[in-house]
Amino acid sequence: MIRAAICGGSGYTGAELLRILLLHPGVEITAVTSEQSAGKKVTDLFPHLHRYSSLRYEPLNKEALLDKADVFFMALPHSASQEAVDFFYRRGKRVVDLSADYRLSDASVYEEWYKTPHHYKETLGDAVYGLPELHRERIVKAGLVANPGCYPTSAILGLAPVLREGIIDPSTLVIDSKSGTSGAGRKADVSVSYCEVNEGFKAYGLAVHRHTPEIEQELSAVAGSRVVLNFTPHLVPMDRGILSTMYGTLRKDMDTAAVLALYRETYATEPFVNVLEENTYPNAKNVRGSNYCEIGIKVNKRTNTLIVVSAIDNLVKGASGQAVQNMNIMMGFGETAALESLALFP
Amino acid sequence: MIRAAICGGSGYTGAELLRILLLHPGVEITAVTSEQSAGKKVTDLFPHLHRYSSLRYEPLNKEALLDKADVFFMALPHSASQEAVDFFYRRGKRVVDLSADYRLSDASVYEEWYKTPHHYKETLGDAVYGLPELHRERIVKAGLVANPGCYPTSAILGLAPVLREGIIDPSTLVIDSKSGTSGAGRKADVSVSYCEVNEGFKAYGLAVHRHTPEIEQELSAVAGSRVVLNFTPHLVPMDRGILSTMYGTLRKDMDTAAVLALYRETYATEPFVNVLEENTYPNAKNVRGSNYCEIGIKVNKRTNTLIVVSAIDNLVKGASGQAVQNMNIMMGFGETAALESLALFP
Amino acid sequence: MIRAAICGGSGYTGAELLRILLLHPGVEITAVTSEQSAGKKVTDLFPHLHRYSSLRYEPLNKEALLDKADVFFMALPHSASQEAVDFFYRRGKRVVDLSADYRLSDASVYEEWYKTPHHYKETLGDAVYGLPELHRERIVKAGLVANPGCYPTSAILGLAPVLREGIIDPSTLVIDSKSGTSGAGRKADVSVSYCEVNEGFKAYGLAVHRHTPEIEQELSAVAGSRVVLNFTPHLVPMDRGILSTMYGTLRKDMDTAAVLALYRETYATEPFVNVLEENTYPNAKNVRGSNYCEIGIKVNKRTNTLIVVSAIDNLVKGASGQAVQNMNIMMGFGETAALESLALFP
Amino acid sequence: MIRAAICGGSGYTGAELLRILLLHPGVEITAVTSEQSAGKKVTDLFPHLHRYSSLRYEPLNKEALLDKADVFFMALPHSASQEAVDFFYRRGKRVVDLSADYRLSDASVYEEWYKTPHHYKETLGDAVYGLPELHRERIVKAGLVANPGCYPTSAILGLAPVLREGIIDPSTLVIDSKSGTSGAGRKADVSVSYCEVNEGFKAYGLAVHRHTPEIEQELSAVAGSRVVLNFTPHLVPMDRGILSTMYGTLRKDMDTAAVLALYRETYATEPFVNVLEENTYPNAKNVRGSNYCEIGIKVNKRTNTLIVVSAIDNLVKGASGQAVQNMNIMMGFGETAALESLALFP
Repeated sequence: MIRAAICGGSGYTGAELLRILLLHPGVEITAVTSEQSAGKKVTDLFPHLHRYSSLRYEPLNKEALLDKADVFFMALPHSASQEAVDFFYRRGKRVVDLSADYRLSDASVYEEWYKTPHHYKETLGDAVYGLPELHRERIVKAGLVANPGCYPTSAILGLAPVLREGIIDPSTLVIDSKSGTSGAGRKADVSVSYCEVNEGFKAYGLAVHRHTPEIEQELSAVAGSRVVLNFTPHLVPMDRGILSTMYGTLRKDMDTAAVLALYRETYATEPFVNVLEENTYPNAKNVRGSNYCEIGIKVNKRTNTLIVVSAIDNLVKGASGQAVQNMNIMMGFGETAALESLALFP
Repeated sequence: MIRAAICGGSGYTGAELLRILLLHPGVEITAVTSEQSAGKKVTDLFPHLHRYSSLRYEPLNKEALLDKADVFFMALPHSASQEAVDFFYRRGKRVVDLSADYRLSDASVYEEWYKTPHHYKETLGDAVYGLPELHRERIVKAGLVANPGCYPTSAILGLAPVLREGIIDPSTLVIDSKSGTSGAGRKADVSVSYCEVNEGFKAYGLAVHRHTPEIEQELSAVAGSRVVLNFTPHLVPMDRGILSTMYGTLRKDMDTAAVLALYRETYATEPFVNVLEENTYPNAKNVRGSNYCEIGIKVNKRTNTLIVVSAIDNLVKGASGQAVQNMNIMMGFGETAALESLALFP
Repeated sequence: MIRAAICGGSGYTGAELLRILLLHPGVEITAVTSEQSAGKKVTDLFPHLHRYSSLRYEPLNKEALLDKADVFFMALPHSASQEAVDFFYRRGKRVVDLSADYRLSDASVYEEWYKTPHHYKETLGDAVYGLPELHRERIVKAGLVANPGCYPTSAILGLAPVLREGIIDPSTLVIDSKSGTSGAGRKADVSVSYCEVNEGFKAYGLAVHRHTPEIEQELSAVAGSRVVLNFTPHLVPMDRGILSTMYGTLRKDMDTAAVLALYRETYATEPFVNVLEENTYPNAKNVRGSNYCEIGIKVNKRTNTLIVVSAIDNLVKGASGQAVQNMNIMMGFGETAALESLALFP
Repeated sequence: MIRAAICGGSGYTGAELLRILLLHPGVEITAVTSEQSAGKKVTDLFPHLHRYSSLRYEPLNKEALLDKADVFFMALPHSASQEAVDFFYRRGKRVVDLSADYRLSDASVYEEWYKTPHHYKETLGDAVYGLPELHRERIVKAGLVANPGCYPTSAILGLAPVLREGIIDPSTLVIDSKSGTSGAGRKADVSVSYCEVNEGFKAYGLAVHRHTPEIEQELSAVAGSRVVLNFTPHLVPMDRGILSTMYGTLRKDMDTAAVLALYRETYATEPFVNVLEENTYPNAKNVRGSNYCEIGIKVNKRTNTLIVVSAIDNLVKGASGQAVQNMNIMMGFGETAALESLALFP
C-alpha cells in the first residue's frame, strides 16, 4: 500500500481526494492537514466522509509529515503551496500539486498574473504539467506534477487536436467557459451564498482570469507558435461542472465529420475522453462526479468557424480526479484505478 | 380603457402578459385563447394568476374575437401565428405578434430558416420590428409590431452601438448566449424535465438556431453591410434570464472607458437599458422579473477584442414586457406603464 | 407624501422594502441605514435597485434621523432593534419593527428564548402584533407594530380558524415548515453557501427554534388556552418561500369540505389570503414575490387528523410586504397599495 | 460471474442499476429491456452510461430472456410487473422487484390502494420485503425480494427501533417526507418540468399516497399491533434525496441521549445506517449518490414528542442501491459490493 498525505484538506478538492481514494485498492490516507481546522475530525467538516471516522486534521508540519507518506497531494491556496511542494519534492517524495504554483514554466509569467514572486525556480523547472493526454510519458517519470486548472483542462483537451494540425487560426480563439460554483472553493463569502448564485448567471474576470496564461502556454506548445486568446469564465447555478464553448476560424476546408474523425483518432486510446457523435453535444450533467471529458464538434460553414464544446467535472477531471490519475501514472497503478465511476445522473 | 386580447395564453409568455397587464392602468383583458385548454379557467393552469378568477380560455375564433378587443397580443407558435395576425391587422386592429412570423422582413429568409412558406407577404411588409431602442419612431405609427426574440433582444442591444460606429469588425462576431429554461416554453418533454436540466449545462442548436437571421437582419441594418455571425445558445439551470457574451475584433484603438462612454450616450434616454460602470458586469439575476437590460463592456487589449455582456429577463424584456412596451408606444401610453417593477432579488 | 426611513437596509428584508416601496404612490424613502456599508450606494450592494441610484447608506444616528421620516421600518438584528425602536416610538414616530424584539408580549418569554434582557417593557406593552388578519383593528391605531416572523405568519394563518372554533386538539399540533434560503439572511457563512445548500435538504433548530413561542402566543390567544406545540423548520434549496404542513387531531367530525367552508368564511374579505379548492394544495412558487398566502386543507379520515398546508413568500408576506401592509393600515393608505403584484411564475 | 437482466431499463432506477453494477466484481449485465426504446442504445437515452456502448434495449420477451440471466431486476411500472415477476420466479430465477407489486403481503390491501387486482397471490406469499435491516435472514434464502419503496425505506429505518421497544405511541405518528424530483420518474409531463418544479415546494398526495400501507405494514409488524399513520410527501427542487421528519408521542421518559443509544445499538452492525451525534441532523446532500441512510434524533421535552429525521438517496438506498444490496445478500456476495461509494458532495 502506498501512503498518501493531503496537504490542505478542508476545501472541496481535498474532500474530493478523500472520496475518490477511499475506493483505491493501492492507497491509504495517512494524514490530512488544515491550519484552521487542526484537531477537528474530517467528518466535522464533511459528514459524507464518515468512512474516515478516525481521521483528524493536523497542522502542516512539514518535518512531521515527511515520514508519514510516500505521495503528497498539495491542495493549498496559490502561493501558499510553493514552499511545501519544494520541501517534499527535494526530499524525494512524489508530489501532485493542485495549486497553480508549478503550472507556468516561465516564472515571470507566473509572477505577472499571480502578483507574487516564485522562489523555487529550480523545482519549477522539474515540474511536469499534469495533463496525461498531452504529457503522459513525462508524468511517468515525474517527481513533481503540476495538476492543471479546471478551465484549462476543458479548454486544452478541446482545442489541442486542431491547433496541433494547424486547422484553425490561433489568433482568432474565443474560449467561453461556464463553471459550477464549487470552482470558487469552500468559503464564507456573500458572493457565493445560495441566494446570490441561484437563479443568476454572470461573467467574471473578463480578460484578466489567471487561467488564461496556463491555457496559452499549453496551446502554444501544441500549435508551435505563441497563442494569445480570449478566455471568459462564467458562474453557473450548479454545484459541479465546466462546459467550454470554443471558437476558431478554420484554415482548412473541413466539415464536421472530418474534424470529428481527427478528434476520434487523437483520443482513440484515452480512457477518459469521449468524442461524441455528430449533432450530439456535451452536457456537464453527463460527466458529473466522473473523471470523463466529453467533446462535441460543429463546423459553421456560414462563418467558416470551428466550434468545439467540452465538458468535465471541475472537481474530478478538473482537479482531484486528474490528480489521482496523475498519481496512478507516476506510481505505476492502472491509470483508471479509483476513477471508473460513471457520472451520477440525474 | 383599452381592451386587449391574448391569443395563445396557455404558455409562459401568455401568462406573463396577464401578470404584467394586471397592473396596467389603461388596459383590461377581455379574452384569452387556447385550443387545448378551451373552457378551463386561467387559474387551472396558473394558480398564481388568481386575480383573474373569472377568466376562461376560449378557442381562437377570429370572427368572435374581432369585436372584443382593440389590441391583440399574439403568443401563438411560429407559423401558427401568420394567418391570425394578418386577419386582425387587416381589420384595423393593433397587433403585437410575439411569434417569429413577422420578424424577418425578407420572406425567403423566413422560409429558409423556419422551413415553412410565408403566405402574407404584404402584411409582412407593413410589420415593424419591435425593438423600441432601434425603431421607436416607426412603432409609434405601426399597426403591426413583430416583437423581437429573446436572444436577439439581448444581442442587438449589446452590439448595435459599436456596429453603428464601425468600431468592431462585423465579420468576427461571436455571440455566446445562455438562457434560462422558460425559453423552451411550457411543455411536456423529457428534455425540459427538472432532472434533465438541473445541475446540467449544455449548448444546443449550434450554427443552426433560428434566431441567427433575426440578429443578422438587425445588425446588418445598423452596420450598413451584411453581417453573418456565430450564435450559440446554451441552457442554464434557472427559470428566467438570458446573458449574452459577445466578442468582436476592434477596428479602432479604444479602451473600455471610451466604449462605455459611447454606450452611455447611445442609451442615455432609454428607460430600460442600464449601462454598468467599468469592471462591473451584468447578472441575469439583477433583471429577473423586470423589463430592464443590463450591459457591461470590457476591451481586451491583449487580443484587441471588444467583449460585451448583456442580460435581460427572457420572458419580460425578451418577450411579454417588451410586447407591453411596444403596445404602450403604439397606443400612446407612457412607455413604462406596468413595467416599472424592479427585479425580484433574490 | 409620507417620508419613510429604513433602519438596517443592507439585508434582504431592507432591499425588499425598497423594491416594494418604489411602487407605492404615497411613500418616499428618505434614509436607509447600515453601519457596515455606511457611505456606500445602495446599488453597490444591490444592483437591481438601480432606480435608487442616488441613495446611500448612512449610520444609524437616531437624532439625525428623527426629522427625516414619518415612518420607520426597523430591519435590524434581534436585540439590536430594542433601543432604536423605543427611541423613535417615544418621539411619536410610527414604527414597524421587523425584528423579534417586540413580538412577544411577555418579556420573560422573550428573555428565555432570545437569551437577552428586554429593556423597554413599557414600549413592549404598547406594541401590536402585526398580523392584520388577526389584529387589524388594533393596527389601525398602533404607534408600534411588531411585524410577525416568517414562519409564524404561515403557521398562524393556517391554524387560527380551526383553533378558534375548537375543531382540533391544541395539544397534538405538529408544524413542519420548510423555508427558502433567504430566510437565513444575507451573510458570509459557509452554511448558506451555494454548494452546501443546493441539492440538499435538512431540518434545523429541532425543538428550539425561536419562532416557537411566537406561534404559541398567537395560537394560545386564538384558542383561549395555552398552546404548546412542535415546530420544525427545514431549509429548502430555493431563494424564497415558506410552506408549512400542519397536523392536529380532530375534535369534531368534519370532512374536508366543511373545514374548507370555515376557512373560506374566515378569510372571505381578506385581500391576501387565498383558500384553495378541495384537492388543490399550495405551492411556494405560486406566491413567490407576492404578498399572498395560499391555504389548502385535507381531513385524513383514517387517522382523524386535520392537515393544513400554507404557503407564503418569506420576504414579502413573511417580512417586508407585511410590513408595508401594516404601514398602509397605520397610515390610512389602501391596504393593498404597492402590494398588488402577482407572483413571478415561473 | 453472475448474469443479470434489467427489465424496464429506460427509467432512472434502471439507469441507476447500470451505473452501480458497472463496478460490481461479480455481475455482468446481459440484457436490458424497454418496450418504447427497443432497438435503441442505452447511451441514446443516457449518455453518461457510455461504458455500456454496445448495450441495446430489447423488448421484454420473457421466453427469450429466461436463459440470458441468473438474476432479474424488475424495474417496471406497478401492475405491469406482476406477471413477469411471477414468470421468472416460477422458473427458478432470483428476482428483485423494484415495483410495488409484491410489497404488500395482503393482496386486498394492494388491491385497495393500487386499484388493480393481484393475480399471483401464491407468488406474493413467497415474496420477502427487502429491507435488509429488518429481514436479512429471510432475504438470504429468498427467491423473490420485493424491494421497498423510497419513502418507506426512510420511514421504516427511522421509526422501527422505537416502535419495537414501545417507546412511542403508534397512534400519534406523523411522517412528513420530502423527496427530490427523480422520485417522480423520467417522464414527459409538465408537472415535473424544470420551470414548474424549480423554486417551488409543495405537498402532494395528502392522506392518499400509496406508500402509506407499505409503511404501516412494516411498522405494524415491528410494533406488534396495527399501526395507522399520517404520511405526507412533498416535492423538493433537487434531483435526488429523501428526508423524512417523523413525530410520535413518547410513552417513556427518555431523553435524546437515551434514544440515540438505542438507535446506535440497533444499527451497530449495519453497514449502511449512520446514527448521528446528538444535535447533529441528517442532510439529503450527505447521502446523495450513496447507499447510506443518516438518522438523527431529538426529544422535545416541552411537548413530550420524539422527533426522528432520516435521509437517504431515493434512487440508491431508496431503490437501485438497495436492490443491489438485496441481490448481494441473495447471491452470497459481500453485502456492500458495488455500494461502497461515499456521497457526491457537493
